[in-house]
Amino acid sequence: MLKILGYINNDLKKITLNELSEEYSLIWIDCYAPSDDELLQLSKKIDIEIEELKVGLDEQEVPRVEEEDEYYLIIYKAPLFEEDITTTSFGIYIKDNIILTLHIDKIKSIGKIYNLLKTKKPKILLDRGKGFFLYNLLNQITLSYSKIILNLEDELDKLESNLLQDQNNITGEILQLRKTLVYFHKALVSNKDVLSILKRKYLPITTQDDREHIEDLYYDTLQLIDMETTYRELLVSMMDMSLSLENIRMNQIMKVLTMVTTLFAVPVWITGIYGMNFKYMPLLNNPYGFWIVMGISAIIILILLYVFLKEKWIK
Amino acid sequence: MLKILGYINNDLKKITLNELSEEYSLIWIDCYAPSDDELLQLSKKIDIEIEELKVGLDEQEVPRVEEEDEYYLIIYKAPLFEEDITTTSFGIYIKDNIILTLHIDKIKSIGKIYNLLKTKKPKILLDRGKGFFLYNLLNQITLSYSKIILNLEDELDKLESNLLQDQNNITGEILQLRKTLVYFHKALVSNKDVLSILKRKYLPITTQDDREHIEDLYYDTLQLIDMETTYRELLVSMMDMSLSLENIRMNQIMKVLTMVTTLFAVPVWITGIYGMNFKYMPLLNNPYGFWIVMGISAIIILILLYVFLKEKWIK
Amino acid sequence: MLKILGYINNDLKKITLNELSEEYSLIWIDCYAPSDDELLQLSKKIDIEIEELKVGLDEQEVPRVEEEDEYYLIIYKAPLFEEDITTTSFGIYIKDNIILTLHIDKIKSIGKIYNLLKTKKPKILLDRGKGFFLYNLLNQITLSYSKIILNLEDELDKLESNLLQDQNNITGEILQLRKTLVYFHKALVSNKDVLSILKRKYLPITTQDDREHIEDLYYDTLQLIDMETTYRELLVSMMDMSLSLENIRMNQIMKVLTMVTTLFAVPVWITGIYGMNFKYMPLLNNPYGFWIVMGISAIIILILLYVFLKEKWIK
Amino acid sequence: MLKILGYINNDLKKITLNELSEEYSLIWIDCYAPSDDELLQLSKKIDIEIEELKVGLDEQEVPRVEEEDEYYLIIYKAPLFEEDITTTSFGIYIKDNIILTLHIDKIKSIGKIYNLLKTKKPKILLDRGKGFFLYNLLNQITLSYSKIILNLEDELDKLESNLLQDQNNITGEILQLRKTLVYFHKALVSNKDVLSILKRKYLPITTQDDREHIEDLYYDTLQLIDMETTYRELLVSMMDMSLSLENIRMNQIMKVLTMVTTLFAVPVWITGIYGMNFKYMPLLNNPYGFWIVMGISAIIILILLYVFLKEKWIK
Amino acid sequence: MLKILGYINNDLKKITLNELSEEYSLIWIDCYAPSDDELLQLSKKIDIEIEELKVGLDEQEVPRVEEEDEYYLIIYKAPLFEEDITTTSFGIYIKDNIILTLHIDKIKSIGKIYNLLKTKKPKILLDRGKGFFLYNLLNQITLSYSKIILNLEDELDKLESNLLQDQNNITGEILQLRKTLVYFHKALVSNKDVLSILKRKYLPITTQDDREHIEDLYYDTLQLIDMETTYRELLVSMMDMSLSLENIRMNQIMKVLTMVTTLFAVPVWITGIYGMNFKYMPLLNNPYGFWIVMGISAIIILILLYVFLKEKWIK
Repeated sequence: MLKILGYINNDLKKITLNELSEEYSLIWIDCYAPSDDELLQLSKKIDIEIEELKVGLDEQEVPRVEEEDEYYLIIYKAPLFEEDITTTSFGIYIKDNIILTLHIDKIKSIGKIYNLLKTKKPKILLDRGKGFFLYNLLNQITLSYSKIILNLEDELDKLESNLLQDQNNITGEILQLRKTLVYFHKALVSNKDVLSILKRKYLPITTQDDREHIEDLYYDTLQLIDMETTYRELLVSMMDMSLSLENIRMNQIMKVLTMVTTLFAVPVWITGIYGMNFKYMPLLNNPYGFWIVMGISAIIILILLYVFLKEKWIK
Repeated sequence: MLKILGYINNDLKKITLNELSEEYSLIWIDCYAPSDDELLQLSKKIDIEIEELKVGLDEQEVPRVEEEDEYYLIIYKAPLFEEDITTTSFGIYIKDNIILTLHIDKIKSIGKIYNLLKTKKPKILLDRGKGFFLYNLLNQITLSYSKIILNLEDELDKLESNLLQDQNNITGEILQLRKTLVYFHKALVSNKDVLSILKRKYLPITTQDDREHIEDLYYDTLQLIDMETTYRELLVSMMDMSLSLENIRMNQIMKVLTMVTTLFAVPVWITGIYGMNFKYMPLLNNPYGFWIVMGISAIIILILLYVFLKEKWIK
Repeated sequence: MLKILGYINNDLKKITLNELSEEYSLIWIDCYAPSDDELLQLSKKIDIEIEELKVGLDEQEVPRVEEEDEYYLIIYKAPLFEEDITTTSFGIYIKDNIILTLHIDKIKSIGKIYNLLKTKKPKILLDRGKGFFLYNLLNQITLSYSKIILNLEDELDKLESNLLQDQNNITGEILQLRKTLVYFHKALVSNKDVLSILKRKYLPITTQDDREHIEDLYYDTLQLIDMETTYRELLVSMMDMSLSLENIRMNQIMKVLTMVTTLFAVPVWITGIYGMNFKYMPLLNNPYGFWIVMGISAIIILILLYVFLKEKWIK
Repeated sequence: MLKILGYINNDLKKITLNELSEEYSLIWIDCYAPSDDELLQLSKKIDIEIEELKVGLDEQEVPRVEEEDEYYLIIYKAPLFEEDITTTSFGIYIKDNIILTLHIDKIKSIGKIYNLLKTKKPKILLDRGKGFFLYNLLNQITLSYSKIILNLEDELDKLESNLLQDQNNITGEILQLRKTLVYFHKALVSNKDVLSILKRKYLPITTQDDREHIEDLYYDTLQLIDMETTYRELLVSMMDMSLSLENIRMNQIMKVLTMVTTLFAVPVWITGIYGMNFKYMPLLNNPYGFWIVMGISAIIILILLYVFLKEKWIK
Repeated sequence: MLKILGYINNDLKKITLNELSEEYSLIWIDCYAPSDDELLQLSKKIDIEIEELKVGLDEQEVPRVEEEDEYYLIIYKAPLFEEDITTTSFGIYIKDNIILTLHIDKIKSIGKIYNLLKTKKPKILLDRGKGFFLYNLLNQITLSYSKIILNLEDELDKLESNLLQDQNNITGEILQLRKTLVYFHKALVSNKDVLSILKRKYLPITTQDDREHIEDLYYDTLQLIDMETTYRELLVSMMDMSLSLENIRMNQIMKVLTMVTTLFAVPVWITGIYGMNFKYMPLLNNPYGFWIVMGISAIIILILLYVFLKEKWIK
């Protein structure tokens, strides 16, 4: 699917591949899960080999900056909202007045930029050139990570209070969060490297101002890595604690079972004894026999209860 | 909330935003959880962009030193006393004769400095200039970490003796301490980096003397990191041990259960047998039948007790 | 087993050891699990010491590039499909117009290259010289890793849903996957080092073009390492979770056991009491005795059920 | 508590603070847990600021070498024998002909040096100057670590055989050892850094010979770190194993319980059935009824025993 | 115990300490667990201080190369076959035409070299000088590690299949292997450092050829480290899995117990009810009473069995 926006004289037009021209001060081509045919056409029009374009469509590609003779390629990782939250790679190709974003998965941040352009502020985003647009794109993605990670904090707090209050099984949720954080860690660390290159290197696509903006993004990413690492360690602690709590609960259950079994072992045996059909048994014909036997049973039960109480099995 | 103190000719005055002037040798503005309006005014008066000020209010910001053209910004992490003890970032802006501390969370150490100034020793803290005041601020924060970590040591000792003596569940407390230490570790390591820059770099805001003081702080922070790491490793050991102890306790409980069940299995069966209503059963009419059966039961129980004793199930 | 292919004037011939000559623009000797005799002959014909050749046959050898006076030796690790998927080392010797691959285990990728040459595209693979053929060889191996790792992703997803749905034991499969990933990690990291040398160093066996191709391989390998690490961490999380789930299941089972035992403890004791053969027992001759006793039993059972419900043992 | 020894003309005298003079070729002041007053006096006499002296009394201080204008300060960590074996920091101040050791905790090695001086060999230790005395001090401490760590080895062996033989709970002892090793690791690693500086740097307080001795100490410390790390890893393995063994023991216990319960379930039910008071029950009046029923019970028990044997529950 | 071999004119003689002379082209002194007297004599004859020799006898010494004025000392770690397989340090002193190996533990590889010299090939090993002999010594030790590690692979495979098939306790064996690997890891890493110095540094005791041989050893050691690390990770995985399997087995046992208890709970209660001696009970005199009650019991048992089957407790 191809969406192309051309910016000329403070005006933003939706154009087609055939209308690409150098008149526009900036053209943004967003290419999402293209068909083979679309890719072929795109390759022809902007004159980048189809093999090179396919690199941008590989969702596992390692983030990096590639300086080719004719264009720049930036591979970057964005959050991917599927069943779980993981990450996906996408490619940003910058050539002359064209910025091409190429991705196989749906990336929310790109949709957001598109909406911003269509509705409100094309001028603000596009007047300052390619480098600034690039910064805005990367910024949206960083914000997207940021939002999810801040959400995680709330989820962590909820999990923690769940853990301490009742016996719900939080293992599934912990696994989910750990998975997301594992993906985020990898993604953020390699994004950080990309930003570190973009902020340091004097690429012709960025101005000094852009580089300063990107430096801010760099620190934001560092901060996200820091938070994410903290949360990951807390999750491990919580997993440990959850395991320990399950053991403690098991202990409680076993104590109940053992108490019940122990309390009634002798009394039941006694009733069994007097249920035997021997002709001659002591106390059998004694009018107080029943009460004597029941009294002994009661005393045994009381002694055992006292022992359990002293051993703190009953609290 | 804004609190402004101006120091002039050995005299400390509480002033307002409009009274800021270069007459004062040192002005300290403490801005805690400012309203949008306060922030706007502050921004105008001291001529730092509002966007820049907001950096100091982000409680997740990464500690660092930023040298801008007009001012210096130091982001630092302080302990945060909420439900759990975690950490929070705050900003110190130094511009001309103004030191501005900007924070969204309540920071005890800043309150303490404020009280010190108001009650006793403005002269000692303020006569030696901005760098020395900055040192005192950072020092208070380091002391605050220090106190908490020393407290942790006592708590660890208490936990350890709890662990060895009875069966209280210490998992919740271990989790709490681990959480605090995870936050402290991140905070102290990045604070250390800030101090390392402040002690090395010849910034115009610090004198040689200040830098030497800050070097001491640097070593104090190293020491705190060292202690905190040690305590973290001990907590992991204790968690392991707690898990193991729970298993051992479970084993004990299971042994009691198994012993009780095993002891009475055959005797109860025997009483069941002689409780059956068959007309013809051996021993039934034998006057010693009851005693023979009871004797056999007793022997079985004694043999089993002997086995349990030998297997060290009973100690 | 020796297979030798000679390429001359766009023509590919299957030749023998004795037909080796400098006429061919490229000769590929694939030597798989050679007999001592074959190895001796090979050593004589291509004039590399037999000791040196044995290095290539050691399946544990560390991947590296060795520049000898007369030839180049590249040790590389390929996936090995046996019971489990592990890895094996093999040697690539490059001398004059000869490329010799020497391996003790069956390597699928080499078989694939051989088939490609025999069936379809000798010209494409061989026209561009030794360096390009080497690149194709290494590329096939990287693709082979890639396929397996992508398969792993599916297996991981399957494991995860298994984990959450029912109580199958997935431990064995997790162990299998972890084993494969441990081997892959070692292999990919050392392969990466080999590729890093090949892409940087101006060896006479590679052209600038070849080095650029190898650089792509280098990034592909980085990407594989990244994926493999991610999956390894997920496997550890899943192992943790599996352990926790087993504990939770045990808790459930113990609860059932404890409930059943507790529910019937008193009612069974009561029936035992009224099964005793005392002459004088209360209620015994009361016509409603049976119903009174049964009513008491029922009430006890109902109270216990209510307690279990409140404690959330029954959901 | 202050102990001062002055060495002059091969003669060792116990002197007081007021007798300090430059006549002595070497003066050793050992100051253990000084009162405020003692510290004040000491500070005056040797002309080091009291704040600086307090650094040496902080038991948590990070080991390091500080070169001040007038004196050298070495912070070093020694083993501390309290309830558990942990570590403590102490300060060595070297100024002119004075060596001052300042410590808040009792340090055995210093006591040992003191005894050596008082009883036997003042000449050997003191004739070769400050550097050599310093070396001897540090050497005693290293020996002290060494002895404890070698003891640990024996304890580890004992633990291991305990682990494999019977069911004593070794968790407490493992925790103790882990704690000691965690402290030792931190201490030895920072001591190593101190020694590394002392052996490399041309400080005026050490001769070439002293530096060579200190280099030996450096290697000894490396060796201790190596041993300590090994033991720590073994402790973790043993903890894992202990956990696993407890699980296995639990399995054994549960098997016994399950066997007993299962063996008697049906036979007890059968006796219950024939204990019912129905008028009409099969076999009731059959003279062989009792034996038939008992035979069936015996067969059931034998079948179950056979099953348990086949499933290897009974070995 | 001292064994001395002198090599002169292609002839190998067993000589004594007094016969040491510079006539021999090479003298090998193997000194195993020497008495104090032997050590004293040795020290005198070869003129190395006794303190220096004792370094070689310390089994915990850190491997390294020391260049003294008069001689070279190489500390190296060899496998030690005692109860478990661990490692031990020994010293190789090279001075003039003398190679002295000094060790407190029995080292198999040295015995093997000795046998090789005595029986077959003195010429091959000794003609090429000290460096080559040194290489052969180190090579034997590396081979010794190699053999043990290859054995480990088989043991690992055996453990793995044990793990998957039946319920033997493999924890003890895993602990054993982990212990060996922990010692090997430390030893191989420091040996690698020694080899790295020997292969790089132009010591007068090695020729260019020797250094090339040692480089091969260096790669062999790298390979061993690689294998050993892999096996260690696999052992941890297996330990995890073993723990998990024990839990699963426990679950199975608990299920059996719970099923048996649950199946008979109600039927046994029913028999108890009809075993009570009330005069008036329903069905008691009904000729089908017995069959009705037994039928109800059977139906309850069948329903429960169906539930267990559906819950997959019975498979």
